[in-house]
Amino acid sequence: MPELRLLPEDICVDAAEGSTFSEAAAKAGIHLAHPCGGRGVCGRCSVFVNGRPVPACKTPASGGSVYIPDAVRLASKAILTDIKTYDPERNRQPRVERVTVTLNPPALSDPASDAECLCAALSERYGVKARIEASCLPDLPGSLREDNFRISPVIIHEDDGVTVLSFARGPLYGVAADVGTTTVVTALCDLGTGHVLDTFAQPNPQAEFGTDIISRIVYAEETPSGIKTLKEAILNTLSDGIRILSERAGIKPESIPVMTVAGNTVMSHFLLGIPADYLRREPYVPAARKYPEMRPAELGLPLMPWGRLKILPSVASYVGGDIAAGVIALDLADKDGVNIFVDVGTNGEMVLSGPGFMVACSCSVGPAFEGSGISCGSRAVRGAVDNVYCRDGRLFYGTIGGPEAKPGSVCGSGLVSLLSALLRKGVIDRSGRFTTPEDYFTIAPRVTLAQTDVANLIRAKAAIYAGMSVLVKQLDMTPFDIDRVYVAGSFGSGIDVGQAIDIGMFPPLPNDKFRYAGNTSLAGALRVLCDRAANAEEAAASITNIELSVGNEFMEEFTKACFLPHTEWNSFGFLASKAS
Amino acid sequence: MPELRLLPEDICVDAAEGSTFSEAAAKAGIHLAHPCGGRGVCGRCSVFVNGRPVPACKTPASGGSVYIPDAVRLASKAILTDIKTYDPERNRQPRVERVTVTLNPPALSDPASDAECLCAALSERYGVKARIEASCLPDLPGSLREDNFRISPVIIHEDDGVTVLSFARGPLYGVAADVGTTTVVTALCDLGTGHVLDTFAQPNPQAEFGTDIISRIVYAEETPSGIKTLKEAILNTLSDGIRILSERAGIKPESIPVMTVAGNTVMSHFLLGIPADYLRREPYVPAARKYPEMRPAELGLPLMPWGRLKILPSVASYVGGDIAAGVIALDLADKDGVNIFVDVGTNGEMVLSGPGFMVACSCSVGPAFEGSGISCGSRAVRGAVDNVYCRDGRLFYGTIGGPEAKPGSVCGSGLVSLLSALLRKGVIDRSGRFTTPEDYFTIAPRVTLAQTDVANLIRAKAAIYAGMSVLVKQLDMTPFDIDRVYVAGSFGSGIDVGQAIDIGMFPPLPNDKFRYAGNTSLAGALRVLCDRAANAEEAAASITNIELSVGNEFMEEFTKACFLPHTEWNSFGFLASKAS
Repeated sequence: MPELRLLPEDICVDAAEGSTFSEAAAKAGIHLAHPCGGRGVCGRCSVFVNGRPVPACKTPASGGSVYIPDAVRLASKAILTDIKTYDPERNRQPRVERVTVTLNPPALSDPASDAECLCAALSERYGVKARIEASCLPDLPGSLREDNFRISPVIIHEDDGVTVLSFARGPLYGVAADVGTTTVVTALCDLGTGHVLDTFAQPNPQAEFGTDIISRIVYAEETPSGIKTLKEAILNTLSDGIRILSERAGIKPESIPVMTVAGNTVMSHFLLGIPADYLRREPYVPAARKYPEMRPAELGLPLMPWGRLKILPSVASYVGGDIAAGVIALDLADKDGVNIFVDVGTNGEMVLSGPGFMVACSCSVGPAFEGSGISCGSRAVRGAVDNVYCRDGRLFYGTIGGPEAKPGSVCGSGLVSLLSALLRKGVIDRSGRFTTPEDYFTIAPRVTLAQTDVANLIRAKAAIYAGMSVLVKQLDMTPFDIDRVYVAGSFGSGIDVGQAIDIGMFPPLPNDKFRYAGNTSLAGALRVLCDRAANAEEAAASITNIELSVGNEFMEEFTKACFLPHTEWNSFGFLASKAS
Repeated sequence: MPELRLLPEDICVDAAEGSTFSEAAAKAGIHLAHPCGGRGVCGRCSVFVNGRPVPACKTPASGGSVYIPDAVRLASKAILTDIKTYDPERNRQPRVERVTVTLNPPALSDPASDAECLCAALSERYGVKARIEASCLPDLPGSLREDNFRISPVIIHEDDGVTVLSFARGPLYGVAADVGTTTVVTALCDLGTGHVLDTFAQPNPQAEFGTDIISRIVYAEETPSGIKTLKEAILNTLSDGIRILSERAGIKPESIPVMTVAGNTVMSHFLLGIPADYLRREPYVPAARKYPEMRPAELGLPLMPWGRLKILPSVASYVGGDIAAGVIALDLADKDGVNIFVDVGTNGEMVLSGPGFMVACSCSVGPAFEGSGISCGSRAVRGAVDNVYCRDGRLFYGTIGGPEAKPGSVCGSGLVSLLSALLRKGVIDRSGRFTTPEDYFTIAPRVTLAQTDVANLIRAKAAIYAGMSVLVKQLDMTPFDIDRVYVAGSFGSGIDVGQAIDIGMFPPLPNDKFRYAGNTSLAGALRVLCDRAANAEEAAASITNIELSVGNEFMEEFTKACFLPHTEWNSFGFLASKAS
């Protein structure tokens, strides 16, 4: 493979045949933003080869060197490898483990086969039915006799018993994956200790066929073998992730017996090649919410072919396995008090939990906070303004990459921050209108927020607040009854809660009631991978989904929230005391 | 592919690259005998290309024409496609079927997925748990909405519920296979009616690595990746059988959702790539007796990849799934009276059944009745003497192929017949010694039975009788308590029962107590394929295996049986009245 030198870092990577500059750079952990979804049309991922710009998302990487400017790089905080909610200490009962049993040597008087003797010993040990995968039967007779009928099989605990997966020795590893609409993160985990050894983030290549899930569903519907294309794209990415993690750890991917995957309902459908046409049409019915436990070979993943692959179950069409994973990662069902878990992307998914109940909903937020549809917006690339504050009537800006990075755009968290600062400074009023002669605001040359941008941002934040309002109202509560707000996802991790409250995205609770939760989807997938006490099906089944398109409640709440911060908050005595 | 013309039939077949003349001829249903197991060393499968003899088992078939002499052809009766014991009318509960259910269209008020609705309907219908294979989920949403939520899935009844395998339309076919040590027979069956549409017989290509199971076990033990070679050989043969049956029926093999395989324990082990080393060593323990239900994809068989593949369970190391299949084919457990089922090959396997009991054993018969180790012996090829009788002191011969076929050898049934005739004529005495001045007997030029041949044949028939003796003694019975003897296998179908009794191979019961049963292994595999009421695991578990190497009983019975017909039969007043 030709060697490609990445500049200015001066890192060398192998450029596999047919891989793009974006893919080659990803191998070194340098992730590029693809605003147009990798179609090569926006020119905003341009890298320089011999001094000439080429779109990194489309141009095949040759050997030689490439210069990758800051402005096209995703900042590391946009990469969802933060799994702070995953704590190996919480794993109670290993799902996959190696167990040593000693069998009675066979005798002429007892005609039982090797497999029967082993299964009987395992049944006795665990008090459940025991089985052996056909694929590991060839290794059984030899392994049994190597140490005089003392044997240490790798077993997995399943719903209806234990199953022997292999007789291999050495440490046991598993892979968990978070398949996001934009980013795919895989993690390699030591199943013995539960510790995560390594994670790897890649852009979801399906973005080429639509940046959001609805446009991908439409692509799959309208394009011959479109669903196949989407399936293969994500499978190739997962396969790459598995291979790279294995290579780095010095293990063989075929030795990995188990993998879990958490993704939203559409990502899970596409992973299995299931059309998602009816998810976007009333009554919004998925083909499946629970996914059968499968063998990695069924999808051609480069793991132990007849091991196990588990896709975490969905709650509803727009409350997916990533949310079920989050509920598990946060132990939401077992938490005291009233808690809400919020994951904000182009959809805002949230789960409200309290004693004996969990209700969830999903609302369309739109791509504003991902930097799309906002004239100065971008993802969290170097040079993006991610922080604005107003002190003594003056605005100050923070930029990804520090003071030496020239502001070139504003990322999602920066937009929340900017809106708050403009409101506090009085540049916009509570209805979002500019109070200045110009109906726009200029942050830096060519970085301008227009009146339509403000309107888009208000609609986006209003959707999030309205979703939360509907959930608490379901249980005759107000937002003030919430004890804890868990904010997940890369956008959530970037925002300043105080500023988010300023603009009415979140309810006006004390700052210490908010927790950044990181990638709860991956953290939950890891829990399910390691701990059989983490029952994703049970978690998903215990959540009641509130379909916001039924009735007018959401629209009423949304309308009330289309104000800065909210039409009703003055009655709580809020903001008046805070607004400067 | 080059076209090969088979003479004298003048049939054309495609000769696939690398296929031998034997393989090409098999495509036209012309099966050749390979006395040396296809190693190309005996020259007894010579065919003629441009007038020059070449070994058909080893020579790659080119285009042009080949003359196949009668003497190398297996007679059709040696091909085990006789499934007279399989009667579709006896199928009670289809294992795989298409069922039509009508679901309530989804509504906003009910968030259940398509899969949940279908499973609920199937669960209600059958009163068991219902599942859907992941591989057919992609077809579910579309199929459901084609006919307004009326859907007709293909389901399989499994131990713990029903599983949806596909939503395909059209007739449903299944494949059953009998994997014999020498011959592999596949059958295509209409799962709706249970009728067999077509069968296809092929030589077992593992013969190249050993004609009997012990030599194949040794080959697998001693040859690097020997077990892999054996596994691939049988899988290729089964795949060819499936493809050829599908092609003839005009269906796609990938549309076939289910297959059953019956074979002896060693064949079943090799099919899964399991070493059989410990089967041939005391205490003769198999790696497994029950085989996990698998997906055809696990073995790479060209069926519906995520359908079902069932290997019938064994009773013991030398009483395999073929015998369990025979017990099912004969409904042995439910038959009135005392019945014995005997399958004679290089091993003699037999099951004695009566009210509330089934006991089985296996004894080593050796290859004498397969024509091996006997100077004039052969398999049932054209020109082989298959029938000898003594009338008025003169011997008359019947030859496979009729009077115009010149006698060139004696096949298994012919050897039984010859021994009986020589005994009746007084050419040999009751101890098997020649009473003539020459210690051999000449049937035709170069077709001679020697003293050592007679001794070999007596040992072979004595083993069969001794096995039966041990079984009846287990239950304090004598052979005269047997109500019915079912003789299975090609050798069994060829022999004359009266003559077999003459030499003491079978007990002296009236002729009408004997039944030729044909290929009970295939018949049983077909029952299990079609009828879920045919429970092979239950059948196998209800059979008690008697290990003949434990104790002296078998050797005592064997010694007593090494006489023509038997040392003890005079006390029954037998033979004296029959011998002429």
